[in-house]
Amino acid sequence: MTVIKAALLGFGTVGEGVYTAIQTHQSHLKKILGAEVEIVAILIRDKNKERLVDSKIRVTTDFQEIINIPDLHVIFEAIVGEEPGHTYLQQAIDKGIHVITANKVMFSKHGEQLIERSQKENVKIGFEATTAGGVPIIRTIQQLLQVNQIKKIQGILNGTSNFILTEMRNRKLCFEDALELAQEKGYAEADPTNDISGKDAFCKLMILSQLVFGEQPNWNEVEIEGITSITQEQIAEAEKRGQRFKHIAEITRVGNAIKASIQPIIVDTDHSLYPIEGVDNAIAIEASLVGKITLQGPGAGKLPTASAMIEDFVYIFQQAPIQEKILEYQSL
Amino acid sequence: MTVIKAALLGFGTVGEGVYTAIQTHQSHLKKILGAEVEIVAILIRDKNKERLVDSKIRVTTDFQEIINIPDLHVIFEAIVGEEPGHTYLQQAIDKGIHVITANKVMFSKHGEQLIERSQKENVKIGFEATTAGGVPIIRTIQQLLQVNQIKKIQGILNGTSNFILTEMRNRKLCFEDALELAQEKGYAEADPTNDISGKDAFCKLMILSQLVFGEQPNWNEVEIEGITSITQEQIAEAEKRGQRFKHIAEITRVGNAIKASIQPIIVDTDHSLYPIEGVDNAIAIEASLVGKITLQGPGAGKLPTASAMIEDFVYIFQQAPIQEKILEYQSL
Repeated sequence: MTVIKAALLGFGTVGEGVYTAIQTHQSHLKKILGAEVEIVAILIRDKNKERLVDSKIRVTTDFQEIINIPDLHVIFEAIVGEEPGHTYLQQAIDKGIHVITANKVMFSKHGEQLIERSQKENVKIGFEATTAGGVPIIRTIQQLLQVNQIKKIQGILNGTSNFILTEMRNRKLCFEDALELAQEKGYAEADPTNDISGKDAFCKLMILSQLVFGEQPNWNEVEIEGITSITQEQIAEAEKRGQRFKHIAEITRVGNAIKASIQPIIVDTDHSLYPIEGVDNAIAIEASLVGKITLQGPGAGKLPTASAMIEDFVYIFQQAPIQEKILEYQSL
Repeated sequence: MTVIKAALLGFGTVGEGVYTAIQTHQSHLKKILGAEVEIVAILIRDKNKERLVDSKIRVTTDFQEIINIPDLHVIFEAIVGEEPGHTYLQQAIDKGIHVITANKVMFSKHGEQLIERSQKENVKIGFEATTAGGVPIIRTIQQLLQVNQIKKIQGILNGTSNFILTEMRNRKLCFEDALELAQEKGYAEADPTNDISGKDAFCKLMILSQLVFGEQPNWNEVEIEGITSITQEQIAEAEKRGQRFKHIAEITRVGNAIKASIQPIIVDTDHSLYPIEGVDNAIAIEASLVGKITLQGPGAGKLPTASAMIEDFVYIFQQAPIQEKILEYQSL
């Protein structure tokens, strides 16, 4: 029996979700991969925090301890921020370890370079979880691109902002009260800046740009406007006209240039993103042959994001050459 | 340079779409597959109808001529109805030829048996185009199933019926006038029975059942109700209450039984399928980890359906073992 050895970097909401999903899906994973999946190590930041994990798992604050595990096959990265995630993944790739990341801030900036590096080293990178959580947008775009040119993408890529706009309309709240409600429900962080300013959606849009167009626009030229200045009155006025405010990230190719923006837009009932409510994310793709496809679902959350990472994991390890690699490892 | 040799069965709307998409995407397909794609033969029914195809392509009414082409790698089947499609695909599989089908009537009945047969013969079957046209529902479900249990699916699987219901509401038409409009626009056939009775949606729902639950309910126990008895008055009444009629195909597992139905349902604004209008299809999937995901897009049409078939094609020929098989063929 072969064993796939995995390590988790980060044990916050997403890391814990991956841990739980793997532990509870052991027999299922064994069936589809023909191998046991063993979590051998977890990288944490705070040694003193109590964690309920299997005592056989090495729990450490030292990444070098993890990277030096001799037969490690894959790393799940669920750390927040550009560093140390980027450095860790570079090291993992150079060691021939596959990586699966949920880190959008890091991947929007370093994704291209990491993918190039991984191709050289013949390892795989999964990044389905970086954009729109459990919505399988990355693989869908990859599939469509096989025979379609994608002309334009419009998305609601931040669930917090969409929840706030939805509740400002539904409950007739001002921005501050709707934000407080989002925080009470755990949909917004204590410091919500990244979400409500459009920065979070920006990172995801840059990842989509790289995937769809093979490049990103100049970051300084992307128009980014958050939702903080929208008033309850504006929303009520729009509603009277049958319209809604939506915070829309949009990317399109105009000639040789890529035009990207993230801003509140007033949409009519016939707009693909008009019906997207609450914390849901959605992406509308305009493709040359297929026409317009819209995907909608939970854009964040412990289990949806974990599901996306494990879908990547299965995809990577179902590829025949890598299966052989595991067999090679086992026979060493 | 390797060559992938393909044949088309049927040269109606979908067959022509596949032909056009392959001819116009030659250099792109060559890049991603590392092989030329050559359409070597087309099976037609009517010899006297004029067709604009490359003169090097063998156009024939005799399937045996096609199946006996010695190094044929793949067949695109776009024939309507159970036979002769089923017999042809069986023969193809037995000869080690991969098959890609858009034939939902045939596949809803014989899909399981064809898949079993193909596994024995080590060939692949693509059937993305059988259900919801260009919406990548089959692959998305396959991906989700890797780590999710799917509990329930609700879908608008017939664009004609959805168009009729939409226009009865929007233009305040009776059923007959809305059907006529659909026929004028090419969205309904001269004999629209299959679409408006729910039979077409039934076939697609059975394909989804097989995929999601590994089995189908007893066909006689599936409740099928079409849209023909819905009146303009009922639709107007619902609209006053902020509700809409949608023709919904639903499948769910209740204990050990699979419960399936296709019927008009009055839905509120917060229902996932409420905003689906016109000829679009949509499928809402409830999965254990990911939660609820909805996919929406064109459920039929020449190019969307062709796109789905070519996505299958690329998926099949990107699998390493099959690539080797082509190389083997070439070296014979």
